[in-house]
Amino acid sequence: MIDGVICAISTPAGQGGIAVIRVSGPGAIIVCDEIFRPSKEGKTIANQNPYTLNHGQIVNGSLILDEVLAAVFHRPHSYTGEDLVEISCHGSTYIQHEILKLLLEKGCQLAQPGEFTRRAFLNGKMDLSQAEAVADVIASSSAASHRVAMNQMRGGFSKELQVLRSQLVHFASLIELELDFGEEDVEFADRSQLFELADEIRTIIARLAHSFGTGNVLKNGVPVVIVGETNAGKSTLLNLLLNEEKAIVSETHGTTRDAIEDVITIRGVAFRFIDTAGIRDTNDEVEKIGINRTFRKIDQASIIIWMIDTTHFNTEIEYIADKIVPKTKHKKLIIVFNKIDKINQEEQQILEEEFLPYVPAERIYLSAKYKKNTEALEDALLKASNLPELKSDDIIVTNLRHYEALTKALASIERVKKGLRTNLSGDLIAQDIRECIHYLGEITGEITTDEILGNIFKKFCIGK
Amino acid sequence: MIDGVICAISTPAGQGGIAVIRVSGPGAIIVCDEIFRPSKEGKTIANQNPYTLNHGQIVNGSLILDEVLAAVFHRPHSYTGEDLVEISCHGSTYIQHEILKLLLEKGCQLAQPGEFTRRAFLNGKMDLSQAEAVADVIASSSAASHRVAMNQMRGGFSKELQVLRSQLVHFASLIELELDFGEEDVEFADRSQLFELADEIRTIIARLAHSFGTGNVLKNGVPVVIVGETNAGKSTLLNLLLNEEKAIVSETHGTTRDAIEDVITIRGVAFRFIDTAGIRDTNDEVEKIGINRTFRKIDQASIIIWMIDTTHFNTEIEYIADKIVPKTKHKKLIIVFNKIDKINQEEQQILEEEFLPYVPAERIYLSAKYKKNTEALEDALLKASNLPELKSDDIIVTNLRHYEALTKALASIERVKKGLRTNLSGDLIAQDIRECIHYLGEITGEITTDEILGNIFKKFCIGK
Repeated sequence: MIDGVICAISTPAGQGGIAVIRVSGPGAIIVCDEIFRPSKEGKTIANQNPYTLNHGQIVNGSLILDEVLAAVFHRPHSYTGEDLVEISCHGSTYIQHEILKLLLEKGCQLAQPGEFTRRAFLNGKMDLSQAEAVADVIASSSAASHRVAMNQMRGGFSKELQVLRSQLVHFASLIELELDFGEEDVEFADRSQLFELADEIRTIIARLAHSFGTGNVLKNGVPVVIVGETNAGKSTLLNLLLNEEKAIVSETHGTTRDAIEDVITIRGVAFRFIDTAGIRDTNDEVEKIGINRTFRKIDQASIIIWMIDTTHFNTEIEYIADKIVPKTKHKKLIIVFNKIDKINQEEQQILEEEFLPYVPAERIYLSAKYKKNTEALEDALLKASNLPELKSDDIIVTNLRHYEALTKALASIERVKKGLRTNLSGDLIAQDIRECIHYLGEITGEITTDEILGNIFKKFCIGK
Repeated sequence: MIDGVICAISTPAGQGGIAVIRVSGPGAIIVCDEIFRPSKEGKTIANQNPYTLNHGQIVNGSLILDEVLAAVFHRPHSYTGEDLVEISCHGSTYIQHEILKLLLEKGCQLAQPGEFTRRAFLNGKMDLSQAEAVADVIASSSAASHRVAMNQMRGGFSKELQVLRSQLVHFASLIELELDFGEEDVEFADRSQLFELADEIRTIIARLAHSFGTGNVLKNGVPVVIVGETNAGKSTLLNLLLNEEKAIVSETHGTTRDAIEDVITIRGVAFRFIDTAGIRDTNDEVEKIGINRTFRKIDQASIIIWMIDTTHFNTEIEYIADKIVPKTKHKKLIIVFNKIDKINQEEQQILEEEFLPYVPAERIYLSAKYKKNTEALEDALLKASNLPELKSDDIIVTNLRHYEALTKALASIERVKKGLRTNLSGDLIAQDIRECIHYLGEITGEITTDEILGNIFKKFCIGK
């Protein structure tokens, strides 16, 4: 299944101080020695100790391509579980490409996305959920998502699944033992104890499956939509949050989304701001389409920020309120009264009492322009995100594939419980237990197909 | 002068499989051990052998930030000549920044651009011309520029300068010995032998200074301008050269240029294509300005490609010819007859004889659309570039600062020669020799100021 030596640039694309080229597979050391001229005579990569650095040159015949450090790892004590060489060269794109070209000439293959990690999985260095977490660790952009991915990569989730699995295997063996003695009508296992065990397992699986609600938000950011009239100050607000927090901003080019979204990290929690058009009551057909799209986007959000320009506090407000309030049932609504510096307390009170007495929402009064009271908005956002306090070893499912497998495992274990309750025959119960084991095995990769692996690893970057 | 521990991300900016963070300075090992928890108990970075890799975690209190490999280099056997640690972490931007933040919290300073190399220079690990070559190696984008930069980084140029320097010092000592015995009117040195020595030195310095013509072109690309009528097929031609060669293309955002230029590498030689507007005889004032700008850009080029659409072979041709031909005196002109698939041999001949009999130029007939005869154009470009065949140990000056110092050294040594010829007094000759030594010393950094160093290293990337 694993064949050949693969190579790739493992550091980020582009020019920098240094770059690292990874070479892995049976024969990786021999291939690298073909292009490596050690500074100390005779100290080839094959001759250097594992976990050491060796100074030398990458040469193409008589041409010196670069001065490098070569690190070597012997199988199985490497990332991939194979012989692995890391060449640390100057971060010139020319040099990076030329070394890669040389390696390809010597018979290496260019690594596919995630192929090093795929090999690590296939060589038993990590299970599939850990391999998937490697990509999550690299993509994580907030403290919370990083913490969850890190824990998963380090095997926290895998351990929990292993415990479940051994419980289920034990469970199945008890039932199956009965079957062997079926004709004697022996009951080895106390049914009520079995039921308790099944319930215990169900509770754990259910907890894991339900954690996906949190996990998905941690991974992708709490979806927030900002609505309001066109000039209410939406972009000023975004810039304000950015500047205040010196947050990491990334443009998420989603594959299923058409818009570019701003992800802003506030005190370690990522918020994903969904772009919308300004809202107003209009007869313009084209504009109406845009506004309807805005209302649909509200459905994707869990927090709605409604920005109101207090200096243009008019009847549009009622139109927007009518449209938004029905949508806030399972969402949090934060009303932000902007440009609060321009009006006095009395005016503010009158406006609120007249227009919005019935809208249930957190209310924040701020001046985006003068950066006044933005902390209150951050507090409100964090409160509205409703994320549980996480401990560093909490197991949170962040992966849709895992969630789906857990959902199926949950259905299986519930059938087991029902079967026990209704005195279903042992072989049918055993079948459901086996199914539950199967679905958990899909997560860790005990049961897998090339297609599943292909789907998982194609999302990786090349070089990892 | 060198103080404190510096740190930086040394790999290219952004997300990737792995990233490397460099920490250098007295105390670097202690600082890194504060955030490093070794996988093998007690195996701190301080305890690991130099040139080895140590597996462990970067921790912030109880929080595990990443699993990493730490490499350690003990002074003076490191890149900077100081204690140096390289932390190889997952290429998540979040993790990279968090580790950097941790190091800053522990008292490290963020490295300035090129500060690692600056320290290497200040600690005597390399001379200044070698340090400058590090940036050139990283920026090199063609085989030729890479080869020259590599040779300079490896000390080829420095060695040549050292030889010159010791010759000059010997020379000066002979003259100065005479001065000590000045009153006795002794001539220790045979003046004609001294003259020969001066001439020899002059020849070498002149050769180095003149190599800058080639060096500058190698480093920045042979400047090529494509002119022609608006629809002659300029961009098709550029795309063609790109596709044919699968060349490395970079956008050179020059600091002194206003346009973005395409650099295309053809068989290892970089050509820098200067953007121009289409030319035609017009009365439109705005268009005229653009066209005049095109003619001025021709002055920057050493090769002019004049593209002619053979299917629109009209009187504009004469207008353009009148404008271009006077500018080709020290340049190479290549006339490209495009869309040659659309006309027959006879038509071609008539057009040429009628319109361009008197224009001295290489003539290429091709079809950019059908990718016909592009190799002939490449041959013509390489021939027109007029670059000498380089051996890998040829010393080529690519750096303007070096060129300027060499020019001054050349003037000094010429004054020495003249002084010898005109029987100038020994102390004046000695002064010119000292000046020559001074200017050569500026190149290697024996004589330097903080300002010069600041100017040199600010062009580096951070992390190198």
